Amino acid sequence: MLNQLNERSARILQNAVSNADDLRIEVSQLAQAKVLDFGVKSPGGIEAGLVLARTCMAGLGHVDLHAAGSLIDVPQVFVRTDHPLAACLQSQYAGWKIATDDFFAMGSGPMRAAAASEELFDEFPAQEDGPVCVGVLEAGSLPTEAAIQTVREKLTKHAELFLAVAPTASQAGNIQVVARSVETAMHKLHELKFPVDVIVSGTGTAPLPPVANDDLAGIGRTNDSILYGSVVNLWVRCEDELIEEIGPQTPSNSSSSHGQSFLKLFKEANHDFYALDKALFSPAVVIFHNLTSGRSLRFGTLMPELLHRSFGM
Amino acid sequence: MLNQLNERSARILQNAVSNADDLRIEVSQLAQAKVLDFGVKSPGGIEAGLVLARTCMAGLGHVDLHAAGSLIDVPQVFVRTDHPLAACLQSQYAGWKIATDDFFAMGSGPMRAAAASEELFDEFPAQEDGPVCVGVLEAGSLPTEAAIQTVREKLTKHAELFLAVAPTASQAGNIQVVARSVETAMHKLHELKFPVDVIVSGTGTAPLPPVANDDLAGIGRTNDSILYGSVVNLWVRCEDELIEEIGPQTPSNSSSSHGQSFLKLFKEANHDFYALDKALFSPAVVIFHNLTSGRSLRFGTLMPELLHRSFGM
Amino acid sequence: MLNQLNERSARILQNAVSNADDLRIEVSQLAQAKVLDFGVKSPGGIEAGLVLARTCMAGLGHVDLHAAGSLIDVPQVFVRTDHPLAACLQSQYAGWKIATDDFFAMGSGPMRAAAASEELFDEFPAQEDGPVCVGVLEAGSLPTEAAIQTVREKLTKHAELFLAVAPTASQAGNIQVVARSVETAMHKLHELKFPVDVIVSGTGTAPLPPVANDDLAGIGRTNDSILYGSVVNLWVRCEDELIEEIGPQTPSNSSSSHGQSFLKLFKEANHDFYALDKALFSPAVVIFHNLTSGRSLRFGTLMPELLHRSFGM
Repeated sequence: MLNQLNERSARILQNAVSNADDLRIEVSQLAQAKVLDFGVKSPGGIEAGLVLARTCMAGLGHVDLHAAGSLIDVPQVFVRTDHPLAACLQSQYAGWKIATDDFFAMGSGPMRAAAASEELFDEFPAQEDGPVCVGVLEAGSLPTEAAIQTVREKLTKHAELFLAVAPTASQAGNIQVVARSVETAMHKLHELKFPVDVIVSGTGTAPLPPVANDDLAGIGRTNDSILYGSVVNLWVRCEDELIEEIGPQTPSNSSSSHGQSFLKLFKEANHDFYALDKALFSPAVVIFHNLTSGRSLRFGTLMPELLHRSFGM
Repeated sequence: MLNQLNERSARILQNAVSNADDLRIEVSQLAQAKVLDFGVKSPGGIEAGLVLARTCMAGLGHVDLHAAGSLIDVPQVFVRTDHPLAACLQSQYAGWKIATDDFFAMGSGPMRAAAASEELFDEFPAQEDGPVCVGVLEAGSLPTEAAIQTVREKLTKHAELFLAVAPTASQAGNIQVVARSVETAMHKLHELKFPVDVIVSGTGTAPLPPVANDDLAGIGRTNDSILYGSVVNLWVRCEDELIEEIGPQTPSNSSSSHGQSFLKLFKEANHDFYALDKALFSPAVVIFHNLTSGRSLRFGTLMPELLHRSFGM
Repeated sequence: MLNQLNERSARILQNAVSNADDLRIEVSQLAQAKVLDFGVKSPGGIEAGLVLARTCMAGLGHVDLHAAGSLIDVPQVFVRTDHPLAACLQSQYAGWKIATDDFFAMGSGPMRAAAASEELFDEFPAQEDGPVCVGVLEAGSLPTEAAIQTVREKLTKHAELFLAVAPTASQAGNIQVVARSVETAMHKLHELKFPVDVIVSGTGTAPLPPVANDDLAGIGRTNDSILYGSVVNLWVRCEDELIEEIGPQTPSNSSSSHGQSFLKLFKEANHDFYALDKALFSPAVVIFHNLTSGRSLRFGTLMPELLHRSFGM
């Protein structure tokens, strides 16, 4: 297992601080954290989004924009990693809900591995005891003192805390969410009890949705991009039988909710993520390349018409 | 507004000088300018073209080659920027005609912002008073002493002048022109009185045309690539009404000349750019993503058959 | 002709050594060589494959993964170079067979230019007399002391020898083979007596095949990727007549064996490369852009159905 996830992310953010004007981000010391605003009051942008996505992955993946594919005329967010467990599950997954009276965020990034308070880290322990800690907050506002305090409480060993913040409905936030194609597959597979540590590499693409003008619409579009427009390739080492069993349950079309826009489903569920069918949260297409057997198995289906409707273009 | 555009371009060219052999470019001191030959007597190449395009944009954009799309079997020139006004209009646009008895070039690059003699800089002033100045010349020959003198006259404050030169019909010149997809959209929108400072980011692709064997044919193909093969995405902050009004006038199909090869039109106009319908100079497709409303609007149309004919393949 | 090919590759590998954990490679001193294991006992991965491909090309080309094209849902290996003769023929071509009682490998990389024992170097001499030497071995095992000895015997002047090793059926080996689209075209053209020194630039794409679980199957799939799925663009300076004459003989469909999976043909030939029709070893599509005439000529055909069958997806 790779370590120093937090140091890796910190190096990315320190570089971002030196290029803050070009990235249109702002840095400030709030309470006991260095807060980098990637899209709350600062505008951010495309490059800021790519930096934010790389930070989420602890620098253990490449994230880039590629020319549009045949699906829809927007650039594609392309991600690749040889360390999907560390980059995606231990770091990128938004598994830390930060909620105080005055703040709400989905927290991701390697600070999760330092806190190690999620069940995941019982199964896959991380050794993150360095002097610095980095979190990424998907939030509509900058963290309050109370919010920063709740984060720091779980990170007592760490002297320095960086928090990079962007709303879903911002240019950077939009990109960092859509850079989660491989992560979404990893998380779904973990839910399905697939032994995720046999997944040695992953690549993923998802079309860059238009930035919404409110976070709710943003959540709708970014989820549609993943659920109906993303293709993930995973390289694994296991028995084919395991893939044959779990593969069909992996992509989003394994859910009975598949085929409807995420926003519609979310509204019907009264904006409660936990009321939605968990099976839905997965890429449109997942392809397993089994290094043990040499076989490839492809599951899922793309829905270009739904994307055009969802993106309004 | 970002500044130090010339310093940014100078850094790119200084790096190019250190790699002159690999880039197949040559550097010489001509009169009072450091002249970098990207394709006149030196061959240049693909990498030289990418470096030249980045220089044009003052380093405020990414330019890369991507694998061919579905349009035609040549690589695509992909460009992106979070600073379209500075990178494209203040720097990349070829707005400085340099004509002496013995030389002709379309001049671009951040030296335009240092000279600030175009109307654009009354509207969008630049603060470019550093010690170095960088221009890119689309020209069939290296600049003469007289030509360099006319350039320096407008740049009296600047001690050092870099001029990078490439003909349209050279590998590097061909790439730097086709890297103008976003710039072409920005310029057209400025002509249409769209408030270009609300355009916060842009991406563009255009198919890399075969290099022509004379500049006239080169001008034909590179224009066809943009007019009939490029797709530009722009992220803006404004009223939807403005996009609804100006959007349909933006892409090349807003011109009555649309649908004919640029070379044919240019010949009919006796090689006089100014006799052509200005409305034609625009990407094939322009998509506006309005960050204010969350709406996306798409205008224009691709013409793959015309591209195949124009490129002779 | 560019020199210091070995120094260029050595810089890439020295950087790889510093990132050995992230790349999942291992470095050891075996006999008188520094051996980098990219996939024999170490797992390697995608990044290791890209590094290996760049090493093969002496750093004189870019190799990257791009999002899938319309052909098949796997990433594409995209390569470009302005130095196809040096990067591909003098370095990347696997022209050095290393066979001892206890080891077999196809050797590539710039050590071939230092040994200069192939006929190619009579025609295109290289000046590679620096202190370091770099080879890439496509092999199922790490080189033995005897194998290293046979290599060193041809490189007596060189103090330091780096050998990077990966099996065809490994993640890194798979990528480095499929990064040979331009090289395969260059080699075929050389066989056809085309004057390869007039080829000034090249780009190529090929779909990344699933990694096979044995080298024989790996050879089948990687060859199918090139023969039936790759598109190469070459920029040349010559007479059109030469292209018209040799062009049709260039792509894989110039062979009577074209249209059958490589594995089937290879088995029928009793696993003897030399019994196969040499005309087959070429990209699916080769497009010549003649800088002298401005004309483009396209030859060959893609076979997506065969790729789907070959890749088992």
